[in-house]
Amino acid sequence: MNTNTETKLGEPAPRWVFERRERVRFGHCDPAGIVFYPRYFEMLNALIEDWVSEGLGVDFSQLLGPRRVGLPTVHLETDFRRISRMGDTLIQRIAITRLGRSSLGLTVHFEGEGDEGRAPESSEPHPGPRVVFQQVLVCTSLDTHRPQAFPDDLRAALTLTLRAPGSQDGPKE
Amino acid sequence: MNTNTETKLGEPAPRWVFERRERVRFGHCDPAGIVFYPRYFEMLNALIEDWVSEGLGVDFSQLLGPRRVGLPTVHLETDFRRISRMGDTLIQRIAITRLGRSSLGLTVHFEGEGDEGRAPESSEPHPGPRVVFQQVLVCTSLDTHRPQAFPDDLRAALTLTLRAPGSQDGPKE
Amino acid sequence: MNTNTETKLGEPAPRWVFERRERVRFGHCDPAGIVFYPRYFEMLNALIEDWVSEGLGVDFSQLLGPRRVGLPTVHLETDFRRISRMGDTLIQRIAITRLGRSSLGLTVHFEGEGDEGRAPESSEPHPGPRVVFQQVLVCTSLDTHRPQAFPDDLRAALTLTLRAPGSQDGPKE
Amino acid sequence: MNTNTETKLGEPAPRWVFERRERVRFGHCDPAGIVFYPRYFEMLNALIEDWVSEGLGVDFSQLLGPRRVGLPTVHLETDFRRISRMGDTLIQRIAITRLGRSSLGLTVHFEGEGDEGRAPESSEPHPGPRVVFQQVLVCTSLDTHRPQAFPDDLRAALTLTLRAPGSQDGPKE
Repeated sequence: MNTNTETKLGEPAPRWVFERRERVRFGHCDPAGIVFYPRYFEMLNALIEDWVSEGLGVDFSQLLGPRRVGLPTVHLETDFRRISRMGDTLIQRIAITRLGRSSLGLTVHFEGEGDEGRAPESSEPHPGPRVVFQQVLVCTSLDTHRPQAFPDDLRAALTLTLRAPGSQDGPKE
Repeated sequence: MNTNTETKLGEPAPRWVFERRERVRFGHCDPAGIVFYPRYFEMLNALIEDWVSEGLGVDFSQLLGPRRVGLPTVHLETDFRRISRMGDTLIQRIAITRLGRSSLGLTVHFEGEGDEGRAPESSEPHPGPRVVFQQVLVCTSLDTHRPQAFPDDLRAALTLTLRAPGSQDGPKE
Repeated sequence: MNTNTETKLGEPAPRWVFERRERVRFGHCDPAGIVFYPRYFEMLNALIEDWVSEGLGVDFSQLLGPRRVGLPTVHLETDFRRISRMGDTLIQRIAITRLGRSSLGLTVHFEGEGDEGRAPESSEPHPGPRVVFQQVLVCTSLDTHRPQAFPDDLRAALTLTLRAPGSQDGPKE
Repeated sequence: MNTNTETKLGEPAPRWVFERRERVRFGHCDPAGIVFYPRYFEMLNALIEDWVSEGLGVDFSQLLGPRRVGLPTVHLETDFRRISRMGDTLIQRIAITRLGRSSLGLTVHFEGEGDEGRAPESSEPHPGPRVVFQQVLVCTSLDTHRPQAFPDDLRAALTLTLRAPGSQDGPKE
């Protein structure tokens, strides 16, 4: 349906730079017994927060608190491909697609744990991620809400991450 | 940034089929004092719910409860163009972009009340919507979570809405 | 179970000072098909917000925004007596139980619309509220997070409300 | 203010049976920069979920999903004693106060990490927990929403937990 978010034949797979796991909780689910989709965006926001603090080493609370640097999302495209149920574990992965002076493009996949165990080379097709996000964040001043260049420590960490060799967490090509 | 979600010169404006207002609450906002973006998707879901029940006349609770018909979102593209603060009133509008056998494409705009007062023909440019959503919903069975044709009453209401003359709520072309 | 929150025989009923209605939405409910209880507290907070702005005439966004006056909850006791389902309408009512220099005690009832139609004098017992809250709010400075006296306009509105004759919305004694 | 939820001089301290840590996130906080209190109840629910699954060894998703056993909260009393800010880590602890045939009483404390480092025996008073909950849960059938006895595995795990010697995580008396 939205082919530009899919890894197509011959295309390089995303190079993952951060990963965490999250269990789908009772409170994430709706009367249909599956994740209520606004909760996916709460998960996405928590993932970005953990990546910045733990992966990039820039304290997110300091950044958005005392340092008054914002990272609002300006564009977000999401494919909800398969449902998730209470008790499922989601493997959440981030890849950088574009780094600008004040903007950052990301691809994020939420896979079901266990889904990925099915070998891609087997005759049965790998089911692929359950949710795929294409996200653009912009660095802003929380005083003016206007875009500004990434602060030096965040830019340095992002640049370093982009140059690093591929993570082992990423899918094999 | 994402021109295909914008109303461009010479393009027809969306024909709005439903509208409601919602005040931005304390609980919608984050420490930056602006709407925490996952809350926009809670608002979007509530808007769809009100449209189905009040606009289309098909009780949403009955539909997703006893009738076991789901309307999950499979694709959602969002532009967050300008911020909203606590106390702002958002005018939320729906237009139908595509009606299939079991899928429904929508454009949804969240405008700031007061923003729209600025006449488009004045020298000062109309600021446009604050948030623009392109959403695809699919009709499913809540027993199998597989797509199925829209039930007759919902399809009839959607078809009628599509054929109706333009709403007065929509922007003038 | 918790008799001090119940209206007992011979006791005066709460004198309601504000009322609003809210429909239970899909997004409020959990996989058990009933309201996920943290959502009741979001409803409670929205109720207080509407009361302050509309009932007391003190703009809540101004109060907590530019005026830097906080109204955090310091104590909250809740009885969840009967469940609510998607599509139900809740009648939410506030009564003042205590007004201090910087603290405010409230009783809040959430009744099911339709539940209240059953006359209390009939042989069938009135089912009573579905959720009963006893809440204590404190006025604080959002700069120091320390208690402070209510600002003059809020105190005046609260005092006036306390002195006003009983609302017709309240239950008959 | 609410002395029955406080550990008083000469009273035994709660015997903690489960503990986890949770960081206060951006999305938990409100424009005042502190935790929006309905989020505390989402944390509480997640804590109970983790305790049942990991501490008691009864899969929560199975319980509330296929087994159709509910654990709704019927009474909840909360003291919000001190604020928490984005980036703080909360140590969340559960103690059992009462185990009945179909009901379970709990005391839950949320302490700030670092707060507890201050020795209780020092001249400076230990600040105590930030949030204190007294919660009563009831075991129900999700088909009828009526109380029923705890299922055997859950009762056995609860009984074993009650009989076990004190956890080392608990505060020293």
